[in-house]
Amino acid sequence: MDKLVEAIRNFDNPSVVGLDPTVSLLPPQLLEGMEAGIGDFDTVKGQELWVAALNQRFMDFNASIIDAVKDIVPAVKVQIAMYEALGPAGVLTFAQTCRMAHDAGLHVIGDIKRGDIGSTAAAYASHLSGIARPKDETAQPSREAASAGANAAATDAAAVHASHSDREIGSFPWFEDSVTVNPYLGSDGIVPFVDAADEADKDIFVLVRTSNPSSDEFQELMTENGERLYEHVADRVEQWGAESLGTHGFSRVGAVVGATHPQVGAALRARMPHTMFLIPGYGAQGGTASDVAAMFDIHGEGAIVNSSRGIIGAWRKDPACKGPLSIEDSLHLVGMNARRAALDMRAKLNTALNERP
Amino acid sequence: MDKLVEAIRNFDNPSVVGLDPTVSLLPPQLLEGMEAGIGDFDTVKGQELWVAALNQRFMDFNASIIDAVKDIVPAVKVQIAMYEALGPAGVLTFAQTCRMAHDAGLHVIGDIKRGDIGSTAAAYASHLSGIARPKDETAQPSREAASAGANAAATDAAAVHASHSDREIGSFPWFEDSVTVNPYLGSDGIVPFVDAADEADKDIFVLVRTSNPSSDEFQELMTENGERLYEHVADRVEQWGAESLGTHGFSRVGAVVGATHPQVGAALRARMPHTMFLIPGYGAQGGTASDVAAMFDIHGEGAIVNSSRGIIGAWRKDPACKGPLSIEDSLHLVGMNARRAALDMRAKLNTALNERP
Repeated sequence: MDKLVEAIRNFDNPSVVGLDPTVSLLPPQLLEGMEAGIGDFDTVKGQELWVAALNQRFMDFNASIIDAVKDIVPAVKVQIAMYEALGPAGVLTFAQTCRMAHDAGLHVIGDIKRGDIGSTAAAYASHLSGIARPKDETAQPSREAASAGANAAATDAAAVHASHSDREIGSFPWFEDSVTVNPYLGSDGIVPFVDAADEADKDIFVLVRTSNPSSDEFQELMTENGERLYEHVADRVEQWGAESLGTHGFSRVGAVVGATHPQVGAALRARMPHTMFLIPGYGAQGGTASDVAAMFDIHGEGAIVNSSRGIIGAWRKDPACKGPLSIEDSLHLVGMNARRAALDMRAKLNTALNERP
Repeated sequence: MDKLVEAIRNFDNPSVVGLDPTVSLLPPQLLEGMEAGIGDFDTVKGQELWVAALNQRFMDFNASIIDAVKDIVPAVKVQIAMYEALGPAGVLTFAQTCRMAHDAGLHVIGDIKRGDIGSTAAAYASHLSGIARPKDETAQPSREAASAGANAAATDAAAVHASHSDREIGSFPWFEDSVTVNPYLGSDGIVPFVDAADEADKDIFVLVRTSNPSSDEFQELMTENGERLYEHVADRVEQWGAESLGTHGFSRVGAVVGATHPQVGAALRARMPHTMFLIPGYGAQGGTASDVAAMFDIHGEGAIVNSSRGIIGAWRKDPACKGPLSIEDSLHLVGMNARRAALDMRAKLNTALNERP
């Protein structure tokens, strides 16, 4: 987590902007006229055209926000579901958004919440490790000829990553610096991500206590030893991270802890001293700056707070965004409102952190 | 689940073929010469070329298997992680594989194991419901003009699906008939999938007791009321499905129960009388036909058993697959071996079901 901790310090801002676009978060000027071009929506062709146009709008929208906040926030969180809703073409837009944020110098958290059995989790972990190198041990007669000049050590993926100062290669094709992971399948489903994170110098965040209303149904179940399910998960998270402590005291294995459970979050902060928290649920979902302040450590570190709609949808409260506007002017206002909301969030978080007892 | 139950009956075969390709599952003849064309793997361009070539091989491989088994198995399960490992281009290959299986008349289970908070789960549920119709309520001045001929009722997505005999529209862009879902976030993360399934006449399978070795870490935790976590999840699955019972007695909300836990599976069968089971872990992971037989109901229904490597990798035990072969001959042997393995699995399952006490 060293890179993320340093980015937060550099910007004096423990917050992350959620790039989770939906049709209703796009200003109307961006959508004007779009449907006229798609023909009949009740055909595959019509839907393909609609999706292609919408993906372009998502890119324009995200670009305006990234450009407006890149000098004041350390990170973005990109929720892949919002892009997957547009089909495979949307998944490409997700990766292109991550790349755009990466190129702007932002730390990119891929909110993918994947989790599966070991061999499958290893496939998902390619979000961090990138495209698997063709292996010598698979029967590929032409392998040696094709890579005649390659150093033998280059078949070790860790060496490959280490040897490349060009971050493009290590980041292709997903351009994520960290991803979120679901713990329901146990260690099998987590360890491949930890390994990939180690190899690629990246991080993961495991869901521990999520921000949604029904998250208590299973996460709060009390077990026979007097601890709740999420506490069992929390203890495992500390274990999974034990071998990857960074120079700033946090491991590569972070935790997702919702802003909507302030007391739980404060208790988890004490229970998980080496774990960085990714805190969703601030703003639109109800969490406040003082709610989350107790989830930081005594140095005011160890957590990063996400806001999505509160920032990327801030334009909706700006009267200037109503009425006839060019697409360029509309996108400019989206960015300016996002910037204002991000600055406001930074101020609120830092004030709450400074006012802690 | 009516369609899946009927497909199983039609084929007298409660098994599903897992289309989970990896480089090591492709015959060497498919990979020969591939690397020569990619240039330098340590560049983005080289990796893009490698991925493009590999995606094409995945399609060829999947096509040979679908063609070989489509008249003997009712369904395929497509594990999206294996495709996501190739980046966004791989996700398109996933959807194209689903489409190919769909066009061959197979029931397509998308093994996506998604799960998130409500609004995000709704975005993921587009795997079942397709591309969201542009809505009148979003501020789109040109909407009315653009869709002047559209029936007002057509804005109701359910009506749209019902009015289309052409399944292409209802299946675009993912072409899945059901998907797997992770329960860790509780009802918020599940209900949007149930709603989408209802709307599109499709199904879901919730992870209850997975097949992997470390699945006991959290799933087997004993709670203070004397029931284990997976039993709590199991009871919720029955509740989530209560309003969608089909004519054959099973709801739209199925359960994933691993073949590697035969006693748990048998107990869950009794506990979840209206729940269809998707059973992974047969074959390569260690589950046998007699292990899974107890997870079917007294009529020999209520479950479908997946095998991936045991079928798509069956060619690896065939001496005829070694040595110089054309790509066409190699793919033919992949298909023939998959067919033989699928027929063997059907025979073993039906024998085990008939020999139950």
